[in-house]
Amino acid sequence: MTEVSQSEIAAFLTSAHEMSDISAKVILPYFRQEISVFHKDGKGIYDPVTDADRKSEQVIREYIAQKWPDHSIIGEEYGSQITDSDFCWIVDPIDGTRAFVMGSPLWGTLIGLSHGETQILGMMNQPFTNERFWATADGAFARFGNQERRLKVSACSSLSEAIITTTCPDLFANERDKAQFEKLRQRCQMTRYGGDCYSYCLLALGHIDLIVETGLASYDIAPLIPLVEQAGGVISTWDGSSARAGGQIVAAASKVLHEQALEILAG
Amino acid sequence: MTEVSQSEIAAFLTSAHEMSDISAKVILPYFRQEISVFHKDGKGIYDPVTDADRKSEQVIREYIAQKWPDHSIIGEEYGSQITDSDFCWIVDPIDGTRAFVMGSPLWGTLIGLSHGETQILGMMNQPFTNERFWATADGAFARFGNQERRLKVSACSSLSEAIITTTCPDLFANERDKAQFEKLRQRCQMTRYGGDCYSYCLLALGHIDLIVETGLASYDIAPLIPLVEQAGGVISTWDGSSARAGGQIVAAASKVLHEQALEILAG
Repeated sequence: MTEVSQSEIAAFLTSAHEMSDISAKVILPYFRQEISVFHKDGKGIYDPVTDADRKSEQVIREYIAQKWPDHSIIGEEYGSQITDSDFCWIVDPIDGTRAFVMGSPLWGTLIGLSHGETQILGMMNQPFTNERFWATADGAFARFGNQERRLKVSACSSLSEAIITTTCPDLFANERDKAQFEKLRQRCQMTRYGGDCYSYCLLALGHIDLIVETGLASYDIAPLIPLVEQAGGVISTWDGSSARAGGQIVAAASKVLHEQALEILAG
Repeated sequence: MTEVSQSEIAAFLTSAHEMSDISAKVILPYFRQEISVFHKDGKGIYDPVTDADRKSEQVIREYIAQKWPDHSIIGEEYGSQITDSDFCWIVDPIDGTRAFVMGSPLWGTLIGLSHGETQILGMMNQPFTNERFWATADGAFARFGNQERRLKVSACSSLSEAIITTTCPDLFANERDKAQFEKLRQRCQMTRYGGDCYSYCLLALGHIDLIVETGLASYDIAPLIPLVEQAGGVISTWDGSSARAGGQIVAAASKVLHEQALEILAG
């Protein structure tokens, strides 16, 4: 597998920005409108998908097919399209569909790119609040309001000073997972629920110190890995493996915090 | 007590918009910066207050003192200043200080005005996302993005179809309150946590159907009452009394939903 050059990275990043722009135009007209919400086949829990979700992934896939026709694509709505290329785009058009349906802005469009086993690019776009977060090997950055800034996690290294979050305590896959999370959060300074992808951006910004979740798909988390790591944070599964495949995830502002969390979650 | 004229209402509304504008300028430079967070004296739980919170209330109080010198003022940070006037402004400079500290945009500046026992004006301003919600006897309105719209609650009239929210389950004052909330939410379609004042705006927008909270102060809720009611919703304490004084609050998209919620919360 050949190395990825700086100019290639720059071209991929430009593509991610362009895909965020075109998907935003598709999604925004649906936000805070009356939208049809239905249950996905084969899923027991309430899992709304909107036209916005589907149409957004369509325009992103069309862009990739045109611009990078040999690359693989994994998407939330339309599955995997695997080629011989070492490059694979991973797309979640609306991460946080429940927030979206509720009119809350705590959702985002996730676009990531891997090269072999390495997640080389990640982007989260929130078009309603006009916020964008992205990362490559050059660092993690955010653009909102009139500013663009480099992201850096907090200096928090102790659970007793940590702000911990999970999207919703009801989303834990089983009672044991929920109990382990409860044990961990009791050791922290403050717990807050809600957030989906937005929470990982707030961790990269230095405002949240610890995120614990379960049941994530790869497209929910892979695009966020570079954001957390390039901002100085640590992210893995509860057993310390790579977060790329999803599952039980822990993201922390520091190695010490991450280790303490893993230890408590292991029970 | 004399009636309030249309031109007086218009002048009060203009004032509320101006106060939202000037407080936004004070608050925004503090949002997502490193801020000092400390515990308020005499409160056992974690209750961050920022410089932004205090400075915002100061500029709002200065505005009222200059523009409406005979009116009473009740504020979160600097207490009550009661005059002989029938008019009383009620101000919460940053409702959702925990969200603010975490970098989440789900906080707002609340400004309300009562005339005798009637809450005649309410406004919620979220300057980071550039959203504003307000209501008088003329109706409830929102401004965000490029649009201004009249607010209308959802048509939801059944718990089994309702989206219910509370800011945080840990905020319930005691185990009984928490248990009653649990019983209610089990009957609903979906529960989501987090939101503070932002949730009442989403209810007025028609995206959330039910909000249940406890331990609210009058300044947390009084400015939001006109928003809920003028959008067609119902708001009261758990025992059906006026929500103006705070305490245990239920807000619902319809009378039927409100009655069902009260019944279950009564145990």
